[in-house]
Amino acid sequence: MSLKEYENLAKGEKLSLDTVLANLKTDEHGLVAAIAQQHDTGEVLMLAYMNEKSIRETLETGHVCYWSRSRQTYWRKGESSGHRQTLVSMSFDCDGDAILVKVDQQGPACHTNRRDCFFFTVENNDVVISSAPL
Amino acid sequence: MSLKEYENLAKGEKLSLDTVLANLKTDEHGLVAAIAQQHDTGEVLMLAYMNEKSIRETLETGHVCYWSRSRQTYWRKGESSGHRQTLVSMSFDCDGDAILVKVDQQGPACHTNRRDCFFFTVENNDVVISSAPL
Repeated sequence: MSLKEYENLAKGEKLSLDTVLANLKTDEHGLVAAIAQQHDTGEVLMLAYMNEKSIRETLETGHVCYWSRSRQTYWRKGESSGHRQTLVSMSFDCDGDAILVKVDQQGPACHTNRRDCFFFTVENNDVVISSAPL
Repeated sequence: MSLKEYENLAKGEKLSLDTVLANLKTDEHGLVAAIAQQHDTGEVLMLAYMNEKSIRETLETGHVCYWSRSRQTYWRKGESSGHRQTLVSMSFDCDGDAILVKVDQQGPACHTNRRDCFFFTVENNDVVISSAPL
């Protein structure tokens, strides 16, 4: 599946959520990549995965729920740590295999207690640890 | 592989690029997800995939090169369209399965000529086309 047949719709035109979810280009495990971005600062916080059920739960509850590939279960971000992600907006990409979730992140998004997960930063031929835990 | 053994290094500590690339947690096709973000505005432009060779080429040339899963070939962004992505920075995430590439995007990032690919935006039970081609 793919959203390709809808890509030429004009700005402001609408589809049903069910139509879009039925046309996502999921991988063989029913997953699509989801990018979490802090809604006001623009920081890219993390990349994780969602299936249809976690997308629907996120929209219904307003708290971001992923599918954990390592633990093979639903991952309600912050459920144990308190570092919740409150949903601000959700958008799917042109070919329906990625989601941009704008959120309000409480505290660190990363399990290392850093604000975001992208702290291995290339500098010339090295990679420098570019942030510290909060 | 994974970068887990390095996640507790302090801010400012260094690894070699070769070490990090050798420890990326690639999928069965040798790929990791790469998020392209406009470096100054923070816009998330697109999600694509890179293998080790495309990462190295991107760092060497300063122009972003992906691996196209649909075409099964290197995808030098903007090579035919002129809509190049000039590399500003590259960071890997905590578990080594995602890359954040900050870029300077010339024109539209999306093949639909929209600035970014995330234009299917949820509004209640609908999905609205949230941007127009440039």
